[in-house]
Amino acid sequence: MLIGKVVGSVVSTDKDAKLIGHKFMIVETIADTWCAKRIVAVDDVGAGIGEKVLVSLGSAARFTCDGENDASPIDAAIVGIIDNDSVIPDFDK
Amino acid sequence: MLIGKVVGSVVSTDKDAKLIGHKFMIVETIADTWCAKRIVAVDDVGAGIGEKVLVSLGSAARFTCDGENDASPIDAAIVGIIDNDSVIPDFDK
Amino acid sequence: MLIGKVVGSVVSTDKDAKLIGHKFMIVETIADTWCAKRIVAVDDVGAGIGEKVLVSLGSAARFTCDGENDASPIDAAIVGIIDNDSVIPDFDK
Amino acid sequence: MLIGKVVGSVVSTDKDAKLIGHKFMIVETIADTWCAKRIVAVDDVGAGIGEKVLVSLGSAARFTCDGENDASPIDAAIVGIIDNDSVIPDFDK
Amino acid sequence: MLIGKVVGSVVSTDKDAKLIGHKFMIVETIADTWCAKRIVAVDDVGAGIGEKVLVSLGSAARFTCDGENDASPIDAAIVGIIDNDSVIPDFDK
Repeated sequence: MLIGKVVGSVVSTDKDAKLIGHKFMIVETIADTWCAKRIVAVDDVGAGIGEKVLVSLGSAARFTCDGENDASPIDAAIVGIIDNDSVIPDFDK
Repeated sequence: MLIGKVVGSVVSTDKDAKLIGHKFMIVETIADTWCAKRIVAVDDVGAGIGEKVLVSLGSAARFTCDGENDASPIDAAIVGIIDNDSVIPDFDK
Repeated sequence: MLIGKVVGSVVSTDKDAKLIGHKFMIVETIADTWCAKRIVAVDDVGAGIGEKVLVSLGSAARFTCDGENDASPIDAAIVGIIDNDSVIPDFDK
Repeated sequence: MLIGKVVGSVVSTDKDAKLIGHKFMIVETIADTWCAKRIVAVDDVGAGIGEKVLVSLGSAARFTCDGENDASPIDAAIVGIIDNDSVIPDFDK
Repeated sequence: MLIGKVVGSVVSTDKDAKLIGHKFMIVETIADTWCAKRIVAVDDVGAGIGEKVLVSLGSAARFTCDGENDASPIDAAIVGIIDNDSVIPDFDK
């Protein structure tokens, strides 16, 4: 999983039918935990802007919500909100 | 998902049989959401040149079109067209 | 998919049994469509040295040849030869 | 697999139900064995802070613990603790 | 597949049960065929230190040895030894 911070979201009206109902959050990578600076991830745990989150990539993203997403074309999902008192190297003091 | 802009397309006459009928769009990455500058993605939502899109990578690309692509050798698919009024960090003002 | 140019091939006599009969082409990435400069891909469409091709990565590579490769340990496959008159950004004029 | 060193952990109270009970370790890449500097991996072998470990990425992470994790949204898992006397290039002397 | 050279190995006594019996080789990438400098791959073809090999990444690694590894948490496997007379760009003369 990568560690990131939710910085925004994008809206897509014309999209694959299996994506209806999903929120697309823009997540900014923290502490060099991914090779790109940002990623778009669906959010099924209710993360808000500014929160630090764990994002699972690849096929793992389809194993979220107890199997409910198993046939959706998603490749990144927010799977947890990081507790405020967790210390992250190179990011928190 | 990565965020990109459709900048062109390529045509392949000699190709795997399961790819017949697909359009291959060249998508340019926006806002550092992927580690390469461009990618070729199949398009099943009807995105046009210049539009901003969401692209799913890896096995997720085969879960598009309600399962119709599940046996195709594709590793990237345009899964949504981003609404014009969505604001993307480091790209839109 | 990435766009590449076939620049050579490698021969492997001692290899996994499921790879017997495959050709291993060295493909050089074009137009920044992948994060590495080259990749080795199996070729089932008959691409020759110097041709521009589409390469599918990951599990997609096993969905080539109408399912014939579905149990082979391959992670990259040439899935199409790009037509000569296709224009590729940052590569063709 | 990548080689890394366990440098910390993160706690997530609000998370996907299938992740309950997992520990999320922050692993720092050693010897340029991955393209990002750090990654968060679940730990089912009991690795401690400071230990050198092998981390499996992608769908492989769900094949840990004899199949017990096969429906969890995890994309990285510590699969082995590296013995102290193993010599790692560019890291150990 | 990436092209690499076997430069060493690591030993892990405490590891996932499904990894018992595997050898973990450190492979150094050749000719810019991967985005990281090294990777740890299981070896089921009997490659020795100094040999040039083909490595399959991701789920492909579990399709080695005629299906015997299909439930192991491995994400990289040496699938072939490259013949000595194969010429590799940017590496061999």
